[in-house]
Amino acid sequence: MIIVLKSGASDREIDEVARRVRALGYSPHVIRGEVRTVIGAVGDERGKEDLLSLENLECVETVQRILQPFKLASREIKREPTVVRVNGVAIGGTKVAVMAGPCSVESREQVLEVASKVKAAGASVLRGGAFKPRTSPYAFQGLEAEGLKLLAEAKRETGLPVVTEVMEPEKVELVAEYADILQIGARNIQNFSLLKRVAESRRPVLLKRGMATSIQEWLLSAEYILSGGNPNVILCERGIRTFETTTRFTLDLNAIPVLKRLTHLPVLVDPSHGTGHWEYVEAMARAGVAAGADGLLVEVHPRPAEALSDGPQSLKPERFAELMSRLRRVALAVDRDL
Amino acid sequence: MIIVLKSGASDREIDEVARRVRALGYSPHVIRGEVRTVIGAVGDERGKEDLLSLENLECVETVQRILQPFKLASREIKREPTVVRVNGVAIGGTKVAVMAGPCSVESREQVLEVASKVKAAGASVLRGGAFKPRTSPYAFQGLEAEGLKLLAEAKRETGLPVVTEVMEPEKVELVAEYADILQIGARNIQNFSLLKRVAESRRPVLLKRGMATSIQEWLLSAEYILSGGNPNVILCERGIRTFETTTRFTLDLNAIPVLKRLTHLPVLVDPSHGTGHWEYVEAMARAGVAAGADGLLVEVHPRPAEALSDGPQSLKPERFAELMSRLRRVALAVDRDL
Amino acid sequence: MIIVLKSGASDREIDEVARRVRALGYSPHVIRGEVRTVIGAVGDERGKEDLLSLENLECVETVQRILQPFKLASREIKREPTVVRVNGVAIGGTKVAVMAGPCSVESREQVLEVASKVKAAGASVLRGGAFKPRTSPYAFQGLEAEGLKLLAEAKRETGLPVVTEVMEPEKVELVAEYADILQIGARNIQNFSLLKRVAESRRPVLLKRGMATSIQEWLLSAEYILSGGNPNVILCERGIRTFETTTRFTLDLNAIPVLKRLTHLPVLVDPSHGTGHWEYVEAMARAGVAAGADGLLVEVHPRPAEALSDGPQSLKPERFAELMSRLRRVALAVDRDL
Amino acid sequence: MIIVLKSGASDREIDEVARRVRALGYSPHVIRGEVRTVIGAVGDERGKEDLLSLENLECVETVQRILQPFKLASREIKREPTVVRVNGVAIGGTKVAVMAGPCSVESREQVLEVASKVKAAGASVLRGGAFKPRTSPYAFQGLEAEGLKLLAEAKRETGLPVVTEVMEPEKVELVAEYADILQIGARNIQNFSLLKRVAESRRPVLLKRGMATSIQEWLLSAEYILSGGNPNVILCERGIRTFETTTRFTLDLNAIPVLKRLTHLPVLVDPSHGTGHWEYVEAMARAGVAAGADGLLVEVHPRPAEALSDGPQSLKPERFAELMSRLRRVALAVDRDL
Repeated sequence: MIIVLKSGASDREIDEVARRVRALGYSPHVIRGEVRTVIGAVGDERGKEDLLSLENLECVETVQRILQPFKLASREIKREPTVVRVNGVAIGGTKVAVMAGPCSVESREQVLEVASKVKAAGASVLRGGAFKPRTSPYAFQGLEAEGLKLLAEAKRETGLPVVTEVMEPEKVELVAEYADILQIGARNIQNFSLLKRVAESRRPVLLKRGMATSIQEWLLSAEYILSGGNPNVILCERGIRTFETTTRFTLDLNAIPVLKRLTHLPVLVDPSHGTGHWEYVEAMARAGVAAGADGLLVEVHPRPAEALSDGPQSLKPERFAELMSRLRRVALAVDRDL
Repeated sequence: MIIVLKSGASDREIDEVARRVRALGYSPHVIRGEVRTVIGAVGDERGKEDLLSLENLECVETVQRILQPFKLASREIKREPTVVRVNGVAIGGTKVAVMAGPCSVESREQVLEVASKVKAAGASVLRGGAFKPRTSPYAFQGLEAEGLKLLAEAKRETGLPVVTEVMEPEKVELVAEYADILQIGARNIQNFSLLKRVAESRRPVLLKRGMATSIQEWLLSAEYILSGGNPNVILCERGIRTFETTTRFTLDLNAIPVLKRLTHLPVLVDPSHGTGHWEYVEAMARAGVAAGADGLLVEVHPRPAEALSDGPQSLKPERFAELMSRLRRVALAVDRDL
Repeated sequence: MIIVLKSGASDREIDEVARRVRALGYSPHVIRGEVRTVIGAVGDERGKEDLLSLENLECVETVQRILQPFKLASREIKREPTVVRVNGVAIGGTKVAVMAGPCSVESREQVLEVASKVKAAGASVLRGGAFKPRTSPYAFQGLEAEGLKLLAEAKRETGLPVVTEVMEPEKVELVAEYADILQIGARNIQNFSLLKRVAESRRPVLLKRGMATSIQEWLLSAEYILSGGNPNVILCERGIRTFETTTRFTLDLNAIPVLKRLTHLPVLVDPSHGTGHWEYVEAMARAGVAAGADGLLVEVHPRPAEALSDGPQSLKPERFAELMSRLRRVALAVDRDL
Repeated sequence: MIIVLKSGASDREIDEVARRVRALGYSPHVIRGEVRTVIGAVGDERGKEDLLSLENLECVETVQRILQPFKLASREIKREPTVVRVNGVAIGGTKVAVMAGPCSVESREQVLEVASKVKAAGASVLRGGAFKPRTSPYAFQGLEAEGLKLLAEAKRETGLPVVTEVMEPEKVELVAEYADILQIGARNIQNFSLLKRVAESRRPVLLKRGMATSIQEWLLSAEYILSGGNPNVILCERGIRTFETTTRFTLDLNAIPVLKRLTHLPVLVDPSHGTGHWEYVEAMARAGVAAGADGLLVEVHPRPAEALSDGPQSLKPERFAELMSRLRRVALAVDRDL
């Protein structure tokens, strides 16, 4: 880290800071500038915060990080891209993986109909929520355990592996009985107890970015899972919160090239939640693939205007099928397949 | 809600939307404007979302809410302010309640020293973290159960009731054995499983705003606790995430008058997390009281430069004592006491 | 607009609001709901704000807009897309228009070298700054009039039309002597005096979105130019300000499908300013084209590490040539050409 | 600045970066860490950007600033607070200066009535807009030159000095004939041509923060005026744009203690624009004073529900008088007067 001293810091103060840097196990390197003195603290600072508290000293202006604070998620540790394999589906390889299905599992008919239609259109994973994090306590909260069973039935019928959300540590075991991929939702990105538990489960994890989560924080949440012994982490950009209100969130596709530079983990994009409006899903799905995403998460519902959740952003199965055929062309244009 | 149709919507389409509105239990009220037709859906929309899915119809432009979606948290339901009472301390009354203590409980000496000093300076509740939500898996994660016991000891010695964070549903019972107030941290504001469990505990809850939580969403999270049968909810503004980087977060004091208009629940302010820097704590603490806050949450550490977490934003006990004497003057100037 | 009254509004108050609505030239339409009364004010509210001031009445909770406030920019007024033609280049047609060149014009050699190289790679317009809006007064402020002459020389040599920024009303005439397209920079998006002056010039205008400009405000700025008699407006998304700091701004590609729905004006994307880093330019350029952009603005410099401005985000000419060949494939995959 | 190299940078690359640092006039200081090499570039980097372009070198990860980029605005250059004196009113001294009046000058009667009433209540400067920056071209654009004359008449009648906005360089001379303080509005914070012109006028300048302007950029805009030879700059916080929509903007009071640390310039707060709603003005005005603001800007209108602009956020004169008497108590509680 770099410790910037206030202008006018005395020699005694500089020595005192250097002493503390040494005491914390780093080697101090003093550079006296024209206006300020800065002290470089040499050592492996990744994952450490002890130097930051030096900011409380009267003579210190700021303490700045030099290294990214994550290790196992970093491309410096592992150069080649991670490919997560789920029931024969590779996520992070040449083929763009499309996960599609309803926001919520609402009934047997609904989930079976959607599953067979998204499979026919070329989706490789079935998505669907059984436990639903809802902003209002009065909104539909999901079919819970019953929903998990319906997803399992849809999997048996179609052969599609299933991704579904788990919301609390105690439910990880239950959900892992039915799900091939455990989804951590945006609202739980810093639910560290839950991250530790899904790490133990060893099941592949789809880790959605929170609506105000910086890319650095996101990779630190991934680091909780990786350092807990589970290497199968898939990242999913789903929109951040900004001042713009014509879209529900601002899908941040910039995250794709940034992540490709910083990490070896595969990156998905969710244009349904990211925009909140079905008319914008296709454009952003195409853009995600063109930017280098390894896959997509798309909401499909047979009758969106009657959906119990997220109707405005769901595609009808026919539109989804059209989307897939257009997406294939974009994938080929960037040397991927679909 | 107000359903705005696209310009050029046909009579048949208008009738179809009206039919669906009726089917969902609302009474449609069609207004044909010069440019567009809008349909008012009359009925109690609070806590309901079914009308929103109509946005998926081709002829619908947008669906806009008219009513706030929360009920029990609303001042329309309960006019008089809620006062939460904890061991003789009233939160939400005339007296501004100050909760102070270290970010993390680090040792017996540390917590006992801080507790006696903040009590002497006039604090009425002791804060301190035993379970710590840390961005990095490599950072100090708290003393956990041992930390709870040290807080209990500090309470016995000083008489100060204790507020401490609980991070997962399974731990609510354990934490409630020691804590007088259960804190839900910013990162768990939409951890709905946790909200349901603290509702059941009946223990007063300090509900911190998330870093990207709108005021409406925040009150819906409070609604989870209230509708779960626990009326003792205290809100705490702690800074939102914006583009500005000179402060760690942007403490949003505007939330105070907005909340005073919308809800009867007491509102606290946390200038330590809100600014992330000890030099800004006093100004923002004074501003919070002047804006009408019912209390403050302030981090105090005997040796901040050696703190295991949040050193940059912690006050030394002497500074805290000065802060309290200056705050008292501001409190009196707005007809409160401290 | 929809005027939402506070709960408990009396009949007398409702009548008074209705009277004022009528006095402002709208026809009031009262809907008495279970909890609140709302009054629809029927009439053409576009471009009007008089009803908004009713929010100051004690009995009024909020006043909500129903219609978009712009007219000439709207697709409701003009269904078919606008194509802006500049020296034989069509912007908004099937072919994706690429405008490339240095951030600042620095010297004759630099601008001529870049111009011939971007032309060879397939760019159709030369960009380059002569008047530069710089955050710091101590930074290089551009070659000004001398820079305009160099751009004109580059145009003569290559045949490429020129887009360059104009920063103040008094300079519009001078810049229009040399530029084929007048650029309004992000910092001047709400410099209304400047907008009025470029409207009068009748020269095509490239209107960049401001870093905190909502899409609605952006289209209202376009409306200043359109209603001033200049129909040749090209919009350019160049990144908005969010909390994320790994990119200089957050390029908001969601704006493309949103704008395609709301307006008939062509939409460009600037991945150089949007990301602030050359390594991210290609991914975001591809994504922009895939999302439906009508063109791109790309910074190219022969020796970026020595650039007087925006070096970190500039491409070397060789990389730009590679980018163009990859972009062509993406353009074809979405039924465009390049 | 600190130049962080990519891990694995070779000795040859390190030497090359050091050579370039030297060529730009800085002295390079190489620190080889365990994971990365960083190079400190020692020299006065304030106001310079040349080193930043080194980020384009393949071996460079990032270039980080150490010093604040402004000079004349800095407290390191001038320790004692600047007091701006206008017609006997001191801004930046012990007394909190309150500038009040209508958003727009609408008529002779309106401005004279407001002027006499705000004076009676204790305001020390009259505010009022003659040239109005309006988001929509169809909205009332101000009385322009006629409005300036009415402000001058109000000044003659009440003795209050006048602050009013100037929107374009060509109008600076005209506005300066009538105004005691030139206001630069939020939308013109980076209208550098305008900043240079008001610098030349030598008239005191009220510089409002833009809605997405970082504090560092704001002080660089002040630096344009200071370095242009005009030392009389007053800063005014007026709300930034965030995701929260219950207030029109998010008034960022954190800026007050941050600015008091970084600069010697006086700081005002505008709670009317900051919140956009009259019911929130008083709480935020009190909070601003408690946080250490040197003054306030408050909108007052005799009949806000009929105002031609900003009606929702304007106070009636009676409410303003009450606000003043309550504010006085807060001012005294923080050792100021009003």
